[in-house]
Amino acid sequence: MKMRIGIVGSGAIGTYYGAKLAQGGSDVHFLIRGDLSEVQDQGLRVRGKGENFHVAQVSRYTSAKEIGPCDLVLIAVKATSNADLVDLIPPLLQDETMLLTLQNGLGNEEFLAEHFGQERVMGGLCFICVNRASRTEVEAYDPGSLVIGEYKRSASKRTRAILSQFAACGLNCSETQDLAFERWRKLVWNIPFNGLSILAGGISTAEILANEGLRRATLALMHEIIGAANKCGHALAKAVAHEHMKRTETVGPFKPSTLSDWEKGKPLETEAIWGEPLRRATAAGAKTPRLEIIYALLKSLDEKRQDQRSI
Amino acid sequence: MKMRIGIVGSGAIGTYYGAKLAQGGSDVHFLIRGDLSEVQDQGLRVRGKGENFHVAQVSRYTSAKEIGPCDLVLIAVKATSNADLVDLIPPLLQDETMLLTLQNGLGNEEFLAEHFGQERVMGGLCFICVNRASRTEVEAYDPGSLVIGEYKRSASKRTRAILSQFAACGLNCSETQDLAFERWRKLVWNIPFNGLSILAGGISTAEILANEGLRRATLALMHEIIGAANKCGHALAKAVAHEHMKRTETVGPFKPSTLSDWEKGKPLETEAIWGEPLRRATAAGAKTPRLEIIYALLKSLDEKRQDQRSI
Repeated sequence: MKMRIGIVGSGAIGTYYGAKLAQGGSDVHFLIRGDLSEVQDQGLRVRGKGENFHVAQVSRYTSAKEIGPCDLVLIAVKATSNADLVDLIPPLLQDETMLLTLQNGLGNEEFLAEHFGQERVMGGLCFICVNRASRTEVEAYDPGSLVIGEYKRSASKRTRAILSQFAACGLNCSETQDLAFERWRKLVWNIPFNGLSILAGGISTAEILANEGLRRATLALMHEIIGAANKCGHALAKAVAHEHMKRTETVGPFKPSTLSDWEKGKPLETEAIWGEPLRRATAAGAKTPRLEIIYALLKSLDEKRQDQRSI
Repeated sequence: MKMRIGIVGSGAIGTYYGAKLAQGGSDVHFLIRGDLSEVQDQGLRVRGKGENFHVAQVSRYTSAKEIGPCDLVLIAVKATSNADLVDLIPPLLQDETMLLTLQNGLGNEEFLAEHFGQERVMGGLCFICVNRASRTEVEAYDPGSLVIGEYKRSASKRTRAILSQFAACGLNCSETQDLAFERWRKLVWNIPFNGLSILAGGISTAEILANEGLRRATLALMHEIIGAANKCGHALAKAVAHEHMKRTETVGPFKPSTLSDWEKGKPLETEAIWGEPLRRATAAGAKTPRLEIIYALLKSLDEKRQDQRSI
C-alpha cells in the first residue's frame, strides 16, 4: 500500500525523514511555511555518514489545504509551535489519518490527542544526530535509529505499515510496545546534553564529554532521570546512561537541537524537554535537584530573551 | 594606637573599606597596580545608601616596597590572583603585621598561612553590596556588616584593635570566635547568587528573586549548602537561608561580584566560591548535586573563555 505522507515542520528532523522517504520512493508532501523558492530551485540534500543524496523534485506547499488529506502526517515542528497545529492539521485529515509526532519531550502526544482524537496519535523517537545546514541541506552525523509506537496502545498492524515505509528507504527502525518508556529513554539523553550545551556557553556534545565536570554532571543527570522514570513506572535500566554515553562518543562534535534553536534566537522547548518531565517526576515523588536547576536556568534564559524581543 | 594600614586590591571591596578607613582618619596606604593618575587627580568617592563622601588625598603606590611595613594589611584581590601575593606581601611585613583577607570563599586563609605564617592570618566576611563604578568611585547599595575573626584561633585583643579602627569610621562590624562558621554562612549567599546571576545570562539579585524557578533554585541551593556546612561541623541554622533572602530583598537590583568579573572578562573565583566548598562537602559525605552542577558549568564557562583569550 502506498501511503500519502504529509511532513509538517521543515527543520532538521522533518527535512531528513521527508527526504529519506522521498528518496525511497514514498509519496511525500512537505508543508513549508515561508519562502519555498530555494527548495523549489535546489531540491533537498542530505549529507552524512555513509549517505549523500539529493532529492531534485520535492512536492512542497505553503498551506495544508493544498496538500489535502494524507494517510500519515509526520509532525516535526518545535513543541513551542504546537498551538499552530490546531489550524495546520485539519486539512490533512481523513478518517484513518495517523499523526506521528517526531517531537522531543513529553506532552506532544497528549496535545495531539486532545485536538484530533487519541486514536490517531502515534509517536516516534529519533535517536539521531542531524542538523539543518541550510533551508535545503541536512547534515546527518549519525542516522541512528527510529522507534515508533502507538499512544496509549500497543503497536499494531498500522504501526508495521509505517515501519515498512521507513525500512524501505534504508532507515534503522523498530516498533515499541511502550511509547512512554521510549520517550523517557530519549529524555535521558536530551535533558543533559540539550541543557548543558546551552548553559555551558554553546558547546557541542564532544566538548561536554571532554570536560571532566560536565561529563560527570551529564552522567549524574542521566541517573537522576532514570530514577525519575522508574518512579513514574517506566522500568528503564541504569545501563541506558552508559549506552547513551557510548553512542554519543562515537558521533563526534554534535550540536543538540536546542542549542541550534538558541543560536538562531528561536524559543527553546523548555516545557517539553525539562518542564513536563520535572512535573511528572515531582508528582511521582522523585527527587530531581539537577533537573530542577537546569530547568529554572533555561526557562529564565528563554523568557529573558523573549522579553527582549518583545520590547 | 594608630595603625599603619595597607590595602592590597583596588576592586570594590578594597576601595570601599580603604576609603571608609581613610575618611575615618586611619593611616591608609593603597597599593594600586596599573595607572595611578585618576586616583591621584580625583581621589576616591563612595556613593550609596546614606553615605556620600569624597577622599581627596589618597596615599597610593604602585609597589609594595614604597608602602613598606604595615601593622595591618587588608587583602582584597580576587582569589584568582592569590599567586601574585607571594611577591606583593613581603615588603609590607614586620614581626607583628596582621593579614586580614576580605576575599570570598574558602582557601584564602590557608594560602596566606602557608606563605606568611598562620599566626598572622585573620579573615573578614563582608556582608555587603558594593560595586566599583569606575577606578575612583564605589557604589554602596548596602553597607551591611563586617565580621572579623582569627584563623584557627579565637578572637583576641588584636581582633578588637582592628574592630576599633573599623568602628571609628562608622562601619557596622563585629568579631567572631569561629571564622570558618562565618565563611560558610557567607557562602550560603555567594554560591547561589553569584552563580545563578551568571548562568541565567547576566541578571541581578532582584531578577533572580523575581523569577519563581530561580528563587526556588536559590533557596534549594542555600539549604544544600547549610546541610554541607553542618556535615563539615559548622552548626549553621536553617534560618540563615531566610535571613539572606530577606536582606537581599531589601537591597534591590545588585550585581554579585562574580557577575561583574564575568562582564569585565575577568577570571571567575570558581575554586574559592564553588570548587573548594564542593570538595570539602564531598569529603565530609554531604550530597550537593546542585552545587556540583553549578560548579561544573561555571568552571567550563571560565575555562572556555580563558582558552579563547590565549588563542
